[in-house]
Amino acid sequence: MKLLYEGKAKKIYQTDHPHQVIIEFKDDATAFNGEKFARFEGKGKLNKKMTVGLFKLLEKEGIKNHLIQDLDDTKILAHRVEIIPLEVVVRNWVAGSLSQRLGQPEGAPLSYPLVEFYYKKDDLGDPMLNNEHIMSLGIASHEELLRLRELAIRVNFVLIDFFARLDIRLVDFKLEFGRATMNPTQILLADEISPDTCRLWDMNTGEKLDKDRFRRDLGDLLEGYQKVLERMENAVTIG
Amino acid sequence: MKLLYEGKAKKIYQTDHPHQVIIEFKDDATAFNGEKFARFEGKGKLNKKMTVGLFKLLEKEGIKNHLIQDLDDTKILAHRVEIIPLEVVVRNWVAGSLSQRLGQPEGAPLSYPLVEFYYKKDDLGDPMLNNEHIMSLGIASHEELLRLRELAIRVNFVLIDFFARLDIRLVDFKLEFGRATMNPTQILLADEISPDTCRLWDMNTGEKLDKDRFRRDLGDLLEGYQKVLERMENAVTIG
Repeated sequence: MKLLYEGKAKKIYQTDHPHQVIIEFKDDATAFNGEKFARFEGKGKLNKKMTVGLFKLLEKEGIKNHLIQDLDDTKILAHRVEIIPLEVVVRNWVAGSLSQRLGQPEGAPLSYPLVEFYYKKDDLGDPMLNNEHIMSLGIASHEELLRLRELAIRVNFVLIDFFARLDIRLVDFKLEFGRATMNPTQILLADEISPDTCRLWDMNTGEKLDKDRFRRDLGDLLEGYQKVLERMENAVTIG
Repeated sequence: MKLLYEGKAKKIYQTDHPHQVIIEFKDDATAFNGEKFARFEGKGKLNKKMTVGLFKLLEKEGIKNHLIQDLDDTKILAHRVEIIPLEVVVRNWVAGSLSQRLGQPEGAPLSYPLVEFYYKKDDLGDPMLNNEHIMSLGIASHEELLRLRELAIRVNFVLIDFFARLDIRLVDFKLEFGRATMNPTQILLADEISPDTCRLWDMNTGEKLDKDRFRRDLGDLLEGYQKVLERMENAVTIG
């Protein structure tokens, strides 16, 4: 398979179909703009499984995403997209960089979900942008920005409810979107949704089940991820 | 006179009128969140003179501000306001922190003026906020934000034209607004407009005539400020 792109957490391969790609979830974990790095055998498999589950759930709720088909332990077949270089962050509670920005403690409630846009640009340290920066740089049009915001809020409504039923608080998460190469006016949710890209706290114990375990050395990374996946699988079995 | 408040560049005194204050422009200069500090004999006088000239100009253009009366070399009488703790920044060319944020060189043109909001909070380092942060923190309502943005853009139109006639490029500037204590629904332009709060470049030579002279040790601070004021006074005399 011809490698088209390798990022920090995924590899993207060409297929025979010009508008389809194979995405492989890697075991690598990075934090602090690549300064901290480690490999966790099995992380790719866990994240792929969760992403597929959540993308299927979102699809049912009418939120179109790049997933076409689950392939194997670490790979999916996906619609090819041109990624919009923005990290679309939705926050339900204060945590991480928002805590520093607003001077509020982690875990403080927000009166309503906040949406933020960060420029996917490692050499600039992924700075936060406002709508005018984004339009001025030509990253996205005004219509696309409204659409991204609307999609992010809809994803949040679905996921906050889904995780709450697993006794998990969806503190915040990051989404990426792309323009389908087959039809660039169609914006698809892309990338992944996993404990690498969400902050997930156990509602009863407060235990962090996400990548903050790695960022802040809070214990075995995959043990946290595994707990999330187990609850997801049990929920599906029961349901 | 009873001192109500002392900031980095101004002192505010009580008057007999509950809704009026006296504002004194100080000679102090600070940069980098107070890390760099110096005193420039006569800066308060220059900045007060410019601020009064520009506030009168803006008043004529229908932009209400806190100035009631010019008092002496360093003081004005002003409507009392509750300052909205935002620095409203308008940018016409890339400079300063925007250069780092977007990874573009200083002096790069912007396709249209950008408006940014920074949280006036020294202990947080004046972080940039988006509209949702501002509303979530209760700093300003949605209506007030729209109004601040509109006023900032209108001020920009007046000032960019005014300075262009003096062969000065208005690269960017910072405004502060307040709610009049007499009528909190009325938003008044407050604070000051001076080379402390604007980036002003000579259109022919590129010489920086503003506080960057102090921030970056580019030469005598007041010589730059004096040049701006002289051109303003000549323009008024001619006109």
